[in-house]
Amino acid sequence: MRTRLLFLIAALAIVSYVSTSVSSADEGMWTFDNPPLKQLKEKYNFEPTKEWLDHVRLSSVRLNDGGSGSFVSSDGLIMTNHHVASGQLAKLSTPERDLLKTGFYAKTQQEELRCPDLEVNVLVSLENVTERIQNATKGVDEKKAEELRSAEIAKIEKESTEQTGLRSNVITLYQGGEYWLYRFKKYTDIRLVFAPEQDIAFFGGDPDNFTYPRFNLDVTFLRAYEDGKPAKTEHYFRWSCNGPSEGELVFVSGNPGSTDRLQPFAQLVFEKEFSNPLSLQVLRRLREKLMEFSNRGAEQKRIAKDLLFSVENSLKAINGHQEGLSDPKVMAKKKADEDELRKKVSERADLQKLYGDAWSSLDVIYQKLPEVSKRAAYSRIRFSRLFSIATDIARYATELKKPNTERLPQYRDSNLESFKFRLLSPAPIYKDFEEFLLTHSLEESLEALGKDDEFVQTALGGRKPSEVAREAVANTKLMDVDYRKKLLEEGAEAIQKSGDPMIELALRLDPISRKLQNLLKDEYESKITAATEKIAKARFAVYGKSIPPDATFSLRLSYGTVKGYEIGSTYVPYKTTFYGLYDRAASFDNKPPYNLPERVIARKTALDLSTPFNFVCTADIIGGNSGSPVINKNAEIVGLIFDGNIQSLLWNYLYSDEKGRAVAVHSAGIIEALRKIYDADALADELQGRQKE
Amino acid sequence: MRTRLLFLIAALAIVSYVSTSVSSADEGMWTFDNPPLKQLKEKYNFEPTKEWLDHVRLSSVRLNDGGSGSFVSSDGLIMTNHHVASGQLAKLSTPERDLLKTGFYAKTQQEELRCPDLEVNVLVSLENVTERIQNATKGVDEKKAEELRSAEIAKIEKESTEQTGLRSNVITLYQGGEYWLYRFKKYTDIRLVFAPEQDIAFFGGDPDNFTYPRFNLDVTFLRAYEDGKPAKTEHYFRWSCNGPSEGELVFVSGNPGSTDRLQPFAQLVFEKEFSNPLSLQVLRRLREKLMEFSNRGAEQKRIAKDLLFSVENSLKAINGHQEGLSDPKVMAKKKADEDELRKKVSERADLQKLYGDAWSSLDVIYQKLPEVSKRAAYSRIRFSRLFSIATDIARYATELKKPNTERLPQYRDSNLESFKFRLLSPAPIYKDFEEFLLTHSLEESLEALGKDDEFVQTALGGRKPSEVAREAVANTKLMDVDYRKKLLEEGAEAIQKSGDPMIELALRLDPISRKLQNLLKDEYESKITAATEKIAKARFAVYGKSIPPDATFSLRLSYGTVKGYEIGSTYVPYKTTFYGLYDRAASFDNKPPYNLPERVIARKTALDLSTPFNFVCTADIIGGNSGSPVINKNAEIVGLIFDGNIQSLLWNYLYSDEKGRAVAVHSAGIIEALRKIYDADALADELQGRQKE
Repeated sequence: MRTRLLFLIAALAIVSYVSTSVSSADEGMWTFDNPPLKQLKEKYNFEPTKEWLDHVRLSSVRLNDGGSGSFVSSDGLIMTNHHVASGQLAKLSTPERDLLKTGFYAKTQQEELRCPDLEVNVLVSLENVTERIQNATKGVDEKKAEELRSAEIAKIEKESTEQTGLRSNVITLYQGGEYWLYRFKKYTDIRLVFAPEQDIAFFGGDPDNFTYPRFNLDVTFLRAYEDGKPAKTEHYFRWSCNGPSEGELVFVSGNPGSTDRLQPFAQLVFEKEFSNPLSLQVLRRLREKLMEFSNRGAEQKRIAKDLLFSVENSLKAINGHQEGLSDPKVMAKKKADEDELRKKVSERADLQKLYGDAWSSLDVIYQKLPEVSKRAAYSRIRFSRLFSIATDIARYATELKKPNTERLPQYRDSNLESFKFRLLSPAPIYKDFEEFLLTHSLEESLEALGKDDEFVQTALGGRKPSEVAREAVANTKLMDVDYRKKLLEEGAEAIQKSGDPMIELALRLDPISRKLQNLLKDEYESKITAATEKIAKARFAVYGKSIPPDATFSLRLSYGTVKGYEIGSTYVPYKTTFYGLYDRAASFDNKPPYNLPERVIARKTALDLSTPFNFVCTADIIGGNSGSPVINKNAEIVGLIFDGNIQSLLWNYLYSDEKGRAVAVHSAGIIEALRKIYDADALADELQGRQKE
Repeated sequence: MRTRLLFLIAALAIVSYVSTSVSSADEGMWTFDNPPLKQLKEKYNFEPTKEWLDHVRLSSVRLNDGGSGSFVSSDGLIMTNHHVASGQLAKLSTPERDLLKTGFYAKTQQEELRCPDLEVNVLVSLENVTERIQNATKGVDEKKAEELRSAEIAKIEKESTEQTGLRSNVITLYQGGEYWLYRFKKYTDIRLVFAPEQDIAFFGGDPDNFTYPRFNLDVTFLRAYEDGKPAKTEHYFRWSCNGPSEGELVFVSGNPGSTDRLQPFAQLVFEKEFSNPLSLQVLRRLREKLMEFSNRGAEQKRIAKDLLFSVENSLKAINGHQEGLSDPKVMAKKKADEDELRKKVSERADLQKLYGDAWSSLDVIYQKLPEVSKRAAYSRIRFSRLFSIATDIARYATELKKPNTERLPQYRDSNLESFKFRLLSPAPIYKDFEEFLLTHSLEESLEALGKDDEFVQTALGGRKPSEVAREAVANTKLMDVDYRKKLLEEGAEAIQKSGDPMIELALRLDPISRKLQNLLKDEYESKITAATEKIAKARFAVYGKSIPPDATFSLRLSYGTVKGYEIGSTYVPYKTTFYGLYDRAASFDNKPPYNLPERVIARKTALDLSTPFNFVCTADIIGGNSGSPVINKNAEIVGLIFDGNIQSLLWNYLYSDEKGRAVAVHSAGIIEALRKIYDADALADELQGRQKE
């Protein structure tokens, strides 16, 4: 499981999220300022202290590649998923050293490999800035309010960065019901300590993704460095070797990416009828293309692997969402929730006056949205990393001229450092792959929009997609990190005049893409936002903070019970064992994706096969939670979230613990594998807090 | 999986089956006179010879407890399922010797235990008697035809028995499209050779029943004796130790109990709307009652176990049928099949004239059927074995007075021997269990029909169900086999005057039950039969023998491919291994029903855990096929059918190999278990045809 493919979704999911009715069961991705104390006390008789909560927060990290993690030693050791770190593993690989294939273990710190462009954040403080932002926008109309709000957010972020030196971001919760300033300690020197082979980390491949029972060693250990030395991390999670028992209360502290639970009903219909089908179409074609590229040879296969995984992962997730939305019971429940809120609003004259017209206004807007959305979705170039770099640089030229508060978020002073860190990454780029992807994207636009479309005409100028792609890729200098750096330093004019064909393509196309994005924003998104904000405020007035906000890829605390479930008229166990791993491999005669790495086969007899390997719990998670620690009441690591089962895909819209489960690697399974398969005793000792010899 | 609970279903499923449109995929339970030569040649390029077919037929057996089996050595060794033999195992058990719990292995023939009342049949010849029966009924009306047909069948059976000494039964196929005289060699001295513990035979219990992946050693070996010596069996299946590989063609030769594939659509609606819900209600209440009885103590639990298993098994099966019928796609397909046939009939004037009115006549009949069916269903006593014996004896008194051809089938001369064999079984009967079941049955009738109903009044005479049951059970002498024998010998008058309270109850109630059965038969069944016969003849005229008849618990040949399937977006492997057994036990912390026998735990390290244990194939089976051999092209045993997966339950109405599969024990798994867990090398040697030392 992974966060959704953001480059794809961004064009389609233009609506932010608002809050809805009262939660039940173990639902909730709670912010750390509003933990579910009442629920924990009532259901589990557990009362976490402030110290407990601070310790958990400060031991948790966000990986800006799109996942979560945690500190697991005082020497900056970080645990996350293999599939979260796999982008870095791919970037550290070469045709001669394929880390995804062989795995990696640094027996000493000297052998640890520096990740090219991984940033890790720790949430060190949270400050409620709602009042300040609401004061700044008092008494003006909606359009002006949007401008002033954006400016105030930029100002707050800049002030904070200057004062504290910390990465500072204002997070919008409850769709404007609250604004919070989150400050992050940032680590950019992250090194690889241990990764297993992908064949065991992702055993069962795409077929078993989002599946349970499961047998994946989806773990990677990294280490944060400061000033060239392992970071001294005061807060980190201790290790529980026993792991969780059936029925035990556990917590997940991580960064869920996004959920659509509090969407207006009209938005769900839009997703079901339009945006999900479109996403599925785009992804299916891309998968076909990536298969085609992979079939050219072993090296091409290696290069395409990571993107192919993302695409298949997204396909399964969106298919799951679509199945959820196609369930009449789900839609009926969502409709009933909205109806209940509308009823409560209509019963209070003050609320009715302020917010009562929001729903009907949405109905009008959503009528025309599909057409514009489709055009915007195809009026852009996807997938090519070089084109993305070119666009970043082209925009840099225009954005930096603007006052800080008016820039696109990533170009604001407070975010510029992180922006450059990624842009100047030395990670390898493969020209033939770039050309292939750029060609595919241009062909798709041509086919969807026709040759007379403005975007298509500007992109192709009457030539074939493959010609345009070949020329741009062949002659760009953007492969060279120093060249990128030089352009940024020389500034806007140098960028405009670079003559680099990829940058020129970006300079030509970006205005058209942005024009359409702005049309979408001004004519649709702003209106939808205004209406959903009204609904959000109404909801906030009715239900308050008794429910958590939708996910925003910021730190949340979930809780739940370790337990199995019933399916197809039998039971699914709460855990699996190494026996099951070898059964699943043998029962498919070891054919891919059920092939095991040689080392895992060879060490079979050394293992205690009844050691727990994976397990499930009811904690509320979603893409972005990958790599989150699962901890017990003593804040000890009992597991590592890496997936949700197929029934949990519904959680995007509606939480249910009837069959939906979060899937984790078991802490005992990790230690067993480290010691008995990988001879990684030093690492296991560090995790278990044993004295190094 | 098991044949359905016949005592329950008999009152409800009163319609026989007719044939429908062209089969596809690996569909078909073929009679041995009409094997699927064309399909095998076209799809698998395999042409079985007459010798091959005869050998397979003569090596296959039917167990009259309701299952299938096969000869697997020249010394009369029979392989079947543990769950087919479990009734005999229960009857051979005592509080001190619980064979279901401990398993059993006779190291020498002297130690083999004689089963109290198990009859085994081998189909030695098949003869088409359609013409003879059709001639006998030429030119008379429907009611008269029914009588004459019944008389002719009885005559044919009697003649055959007298001539050959073989058990002879006329089988109705294609709902009267064909009649066949099947002659069986009969074995009644059957002894127990080997049975594993029920905990491994039925590992996972009711939850895992009808489930796959699966890990069950559901095998039992018996031995047929003649004249006190092991029967010399010329035809038996040799053993394949490798078992099947993925994609291999395999065959199943067994006795599928019944299918409803060729039912008129109106009957499916009747089952969906009325008879399945009624069966589910009766079974759910019985399950509750049996649980209540089991909770009284360990001995009660042992006594109730076998019936409880049957009930849970039926519940799951009927639930599966009901799910199938609730799938709009299934109903649409069945409707389309019927519409196609009606269209073809309407296009041929001759057929239209003969059969065209059948469907509309059914619509009328089915309107009133539910009410009468319900009354008939509750106007009988279920579950009590003593009452069943009493009824058999009571009927014996009346039936034997009639001419042979007019008797109920089991009282005809040709079947009397088998009837007595069962009636005079020395198997233990438990009085408190009998009283409990009789009370429950009487209470159910009282509740469903009310105190003023004729059946209820006659049964209770104003007293409480528990009183009536207590008295009848306490004072009956039917526990004594010699007493039963004496009554049969003394004949009708002695039976009438026995004064035994259970027999008196049967004598009072049987006429009422039969009156209702006759009402159902005369007013409904005969009309439905007439209409479905017309439809059957129409179908036979249109499609001929290109499709096999519905199942009739007579010998059939199925074929299919060993292969897995896709489900929940991942793959289910074609086989499982012993690794998976230990995984499933460990992943439930060995809690029942996932507990393993001590011996299976202790011998874990002796096993090659990658040995295949269970596997699936697409061969077309249904309840009654339990215990059927799975053989390869060389007619070697590669497995042993013991179940279908949950998706195969639909096969009652419609075959599909998309996800539906037959589930079998793997031949290699059986040998591995016999040798390494049970030290049963002599038995394994006999199976593998090795010289005894």
